[in-house]
Amino acid sequence: MKIMDYASVAPTLIDNDQAKAVAARVVIGKKDGADHFCMRIFEIMPGGYSPKHAHAWEHEIFVHAGVGEAYGNGQWRPVKPGTVLFVPSGEEHQIRNPGRERLVFACLIPSGVPEL
Amino acid sequence: MKIMDYASVAPTLIDNDQAKAVAARVVIGKKDGADHFCMRIFEIMPGGYSPKHAHAWEHEIFVHAGVGEAYGNGQWRPVKPGTVLFVPSGEEHQIRNPGRERLVFACLIPSGVPEL
Repeated sequence: MKIMDYASVAPTLIDNDQAKAVAARVVIGKKDGADHFCMRIFEIMPGGYSPKHAHAWEHEIFVHAGVGEAYGNGQWRPVKPGTVLFVPSGEEHQIRNPGRERLVFACLIPSGVPEL
Repeated sequence: MKIMDYASVAPTLIDNDQAKAVAARVVIGKKDGADHFCMRIFEIMPGGYSPKHAHAWEHEIFVHAGVGEAYGNGQWRPVKPGTVLFVPSGEEHQIRNPGRERLVFACLIPSGVPEL
């Protein structure tokens, strides 16, 4: 069994023309022997956002801390601790943090696609 | 996109000779079209515990709230918000809540096994 705090993993910082102020961590993946799916933890800082994009795999997301907004089906909706999101394969989506605290969520993907 | 609060799902209450004071919810599963893996949210009340068992599939766990202890590799270790656990296939494991608050965690499993 592997047990650790997610923050003990060095983050990959993402700040470009498509995403802003995002810290991403692969916490369970191929190198752990996780053959079916991969857990990443994302932190989006106030004012930050993930890319608005679509891809050929699903997301299963659990919001841990902070508040934010998620885009899907043509609209923005609020998310907060305890919110669960399922983004089916092929659906455009984005998450942004218009708040004043760090938005933290787990986002899982199937194996066989880029872990980050 | 499906967005909801995990608590909006009616829990399955588990209280028997192997597990105590557990509320379990499937929040993303087969009925949502999640073909690769399944997200469940577990709440373990103070004094409660999950079964000590092993099975032929892995767990990927993220602790959301509360404090508790996880058994694996022959020892108990503390868990708290932000703790990540990977339980490989076949490894004996258990989670218990000796604290005074509800212990809440997401526990994901591959598809093709019982969702609860």
